[in-house]
Amino acid sequence: MSLKIALAQLNFAVADIAANTAKIITAAEQAKQQQANVVVFPELCVTGYPPEDLLLREDFLQQAQQAVDDIRHNIHGIAVVTGYPQAHGKWRYNAATVLLDGQVLAEYHKNALPNYGVFDEHRYFNVGHQTSLFEVKGYKLALTICEDIWTGDIIAKNRKAGADIILSLNASPFHAGKMRERENIICSQIKEAAIPLVYVNQIGGQDELVFDGASFVADRNGKIAFRAAEFEEQLSVVEFFEKQPQACSIAPLYQPVISEYKALVLGIKDYVRKNGFHGVILGLSGGIDSALVLALAADALGSNQVEAVLMPSRYTQDMSNEDAKLEAEALGVKYHIIPIEPAVTAFGAMLEPIFAGSSEDTTEENIQARCRGILLMALSNKQGRLLLTTGNKSEMSVGYSTLYGDMAGGFAPLKDVSKLMVYKLAEYRNTLSPVIPERVITRPPSAELAPGQKDEDSLPPYAVLDPILALYIEQDKSAAEIVAMGYPVAAVKRAISLVDRNEYKRRQSPPGIRITPRAFGRDRRYPISSAYRGAANLVEE
Amino acid sequence: MSLKIALAQLNFAVADIAANTAKIITAAEQAKQQQANVVVFPELCVTGYPPEDLLLREDFLQQAQQAVDDIRHNIHGIAVVTGYPQAHGKWRYNAATVLLDGQVLAEYHKNALPNYGVFDEHRYFNVGHQTSLFEVKGYKLALTICEDIWTGDIIAKNRKAGADIILSLNASPFHAGKMRERENIICSQIKEAAIPLVYVNQIGGQDELVFDGASFVADRNGKIAFRAAEFEEQLSVVEFFEKQPQACSIAPLYQPVISEYKALVLGIKDYVRKNGFHGVILGLSGGIDSALVLALAADALGSNQVEAVLMPSRYTQDMSNEDAKLEAEALGVKYHIIPIEPAVTAFGAMLEPIFAGSSEDTTEENIQARCRGILLMALSNKQGRLLLTTGNKSEMSVGYSTLYGDMAGGFAPLKDVSKLMVYKLAEYRNTLSPVIPERVITRPPSAELAPGQKDEDSLPPYAVLDPILALYIEQDKSAAEIVAMGYPVAAVKRAISLVDRNEYKRRQSPPGIRITPRAFGRDRRYPISSAYRGAANLVEE
Repeated sequence: MSLKIALAQLNFAVADIAANTAKIITAAEQAKQQQANVVVFPELCVTGYPPEDLLLREDFLQQAQQAVDDIRHNIHGIAVVTGYPQAHGKWRYNAATVLLDGQVLAEYHKNALPNYGVFDEHRYFNVGHQTSLFEVKGYKLALTICEDIWTGDIIAKNRKAGADIILSLNASPFHAGKMRERENIICSQIKEAAIPLVYVNQIGGQDELVFDGASFVADRNGKIAFRAAEFEEQLSVVEFFEKQPQACSIAPLYQPVISEYKALVLGIKDYVRKNGFHGVILGLSGGIDSALVLALAADALGSNQVEAVLMPSRYTQDMSNEDAKLEAEALGVKYHIIPIEPAVTAFGAMLEPIFAGSSEDTTEENIQARCRGILLMALSNKQGRLLLTTGNKSEMSVGYSTLYGDMAGGFAPLKDVSKLMVYKLAEYRNTLSPVIPERVITRPPSAELAPGQKDEDSLPPYAVLDPILALYIEQDKSAAEIVAMGYPVAAVKRAISLVDRNEYKRRQSPPGIRITPRAFGRDRRYPISSAYRGAANLVEE
Repeated sequence: MSLKIALAQLNFAVADIAANTAKIITAAEQAKQQQANVVVFPELCVTGYPPEDLLLREDFLQQAQQAVDDIRHNIHGIAVVTGYPQAHGKWRYNAATVLLDGQVLAEYHKNALPNYGVFDEHRYFNVGHQTSLFEVKGYKLALTICEDIWTGDIIAKNRKAGADIILSLNASPFHAGKMRERENIICSQIKEAAIPLVYVNQIGGQDELVFDGASFVADRNGKIAFRAAEFEEQLSVVEFFEKQPQACSIAPLYQPVISEYKALVLGIKDYVRKNGFHGVILGLSGGIDSALVLALAADALGSNQVEAVLMPSRYTQDMSNEDAKLEAEALGVKYHIIPIEPAVTAFGAMLEPIFAGSSEDTTEENIQARCRGILLMALSNKQGRLLLTTGNKSEMSVGYSTLYGDMAGGFAPLKDVSKLMVYKLAEYRNTLSPVIPERVITRPPSAELAPGQKDEDSLPPYAVLDPILALYIEQDKSAAEIVAMGYPVAAVKRAISLVDRNEYKRRQSPPGIRITPRAFGRDRRYPISSAYRGAANLVEE
């Protein structure tokens, strides 16, 4: 007996219930036209994911229920498997519902609620305790939602209950290597239970998160029979015969640097689109970070939606201006040049009576960065463009950035991208077309806020700094453990003490796109008032 | 038989494990000198509360366990009941432990883990399932932690297990009216189970939270036998005789406005102290918000730790400058005057080539606010003073504030204080000594960023706006429900649409002190990219 299941890997918008509902109905119609018997949508697709504290609003939950009723009445002849937040009196569930010919064929409440990393599902939902199966054309289909299948327990329960195929609705956010991790873990569970699985994930950017899709079907041996493309909307139909999926198209998984680049492009595109901005603006310094953000923004939005500003000071080298111009010209992006000297001079004179007698320090460097922040925000305000801030994760970690200065902006594409990764992404982008001058990649990085300044004057070299930061921030390794891995004590001490002291800056930073297993934001919740000093007990030899 | 129990209502610092340990040992010694048999400390006092994601670090958990061992070996002759995060292999518990004469007499793992509001305890801890009793001088004492006793279940279980007294370790954050709510709910549980209770809460500020203490002892009839003062460290001994507490001192609960004022003062004091700042700085506009923050800061830190800056523009009225000076002089606070005109003019000229032909809008208003932000941050950077930002909750709600302008600063004391509450607090402060000129309280509020500007030109009057905001933000009421309560449709529509649209500003705002049941911050987690428009379906008549 044959069964056709459609996987609806689509991009939903948080709280845009009307648009999401229309999208579900349209996709279900298309699936039906392709002779699918069942169409599976991602987790909570009716509301978009994650709706966060909107889930605490009664009116929001009622709108979601109304939308599910609308879908139920508007689609016939195909079983529609969709996800939404369900209210039962005082109880709240992360639910999957199966709609067929105006009826609710089955309902399921997510059993495994993640409450770690970026997830807060115990904040919103009650735990479901039941499995749920429904039958179509003689096939018994089991409902599961995301986290449920990361351990074997629920798969085994469903197998025992007689399931022929596991359906899995997901909103599984991207980080580098996640697709492989997902398939490996889930397919090993599937193989163990000897049952095929249909995995549907959404795509799209939502604030800090990007969802990568890569929906797939695995057979009862845990072998991939179908895979959808990453980062693209796709409606695909997979046929089952004798309870096994028929092998069809398997989109390749991208190399890490490519998937990261695509995640950043989609993250920018969706943040701009979903928030209704008229394009973006950014400051171009001639450095590698802003060069990469410019390329990402142009790739995400088109060059005509991007505007750049060069804001040289007395410390800006000629080659920085030249390179910045070359970058904008290579991508066909319009740019302005506004030297910041008049504003810096004005502030110097205004503060002179109070600062007289004190020597120059980071105060004066910050004033320069903040004058640039004012100019960029003025252009952003006047034109309705989103200001992209260009700082990377290494800087954000150690506080090598100015609050309200270069940190000013609505969105920070590189917030979770280490400096070493910035170079890799820039090199990858240049293989598509040469848009970042070679000199920008090879010259030593500098903030150009003081004469002859270089990043490495006050920070360990990035080749040393970045792995230390990843171990400390993403893996919670202690200073002693990091030193035991062979990193120099002085560099470990310097890096960790800067991370510890700069939580206050990160708290006021704009959201950025998560591409590692732990980003700054919802993912990492540290106190500002904290006496924790990770490197306090390290002794320099 | 008599039993003496000491309540250690103290101020602990997050992650300052060495200092917290020393404080616990000292207080236990003092309790012993007062003939106490048992001393009870607050929840997680060894690490301070809440340590947030530090709880995910192995080295941090090891330090906490080491501290408990140190306490165990350093105190003899009194049972020490203390709280700390406990690791058992892969399991993590919010634990209470009883230490006596070098031994662990009893251990308890919190049963009820709050995961709502500001709490994320399922992120960090496993659920405990056991009760735990220990015996001292013939009394059976039961251990509970905070949330445990907000429902009657665990109290009943302990009663059934033969407990004579419930001990409750707490880190229960303040909001207006919380002390009464706490006592009412808990005492009704106690009365039902007919068992006395010893409730110990910490005091102190920790980022967004203030803990108010108000520790108490209730007898088996649910009657208060002892209460510690709010917002003060206090070590008190209560004697039990025939299993009932002997009535002793009962500190009165403050009127709401007084407790709120004290919460704000303690919140400022601890944020400055725990983060090692050399005092604070703030901009004085002549308006009510900055006048109140000035008084709070002076009361928290002493006038010599506070510095003010007047930054008039072409739109600043003379009376604003006069009043600002009077405020600083009344409190003996040093102030500077820096007119912002030179910087505003410089930016105008720099942007003229690009802005030529466009009319003035909020862009130009924002430039003024941001020039002030630069000046204040420059003084903050140069002097190592914390910049206090002075915006209130009403402004923060509707986005009536400038990112990187008046929102610049490390801490926002009024972030959770509505405009109407600002007036009440100012009036209360003036009853202690006249520090805020009457005119500042009576004149219509204005941002003074454009000629003749008044808040009410673009916002509903605060008497209408503030209750709408509280219903929408703190109580999740829908627009329709708020209108049904009698608020004007136009005002509801305006207020809600502004709240919905300004999440991006709040995301970059500094932390502030929570005094309502729902503050902006960890307490309210809304997406920025969101199509939710709470007032979309309201029809104006």
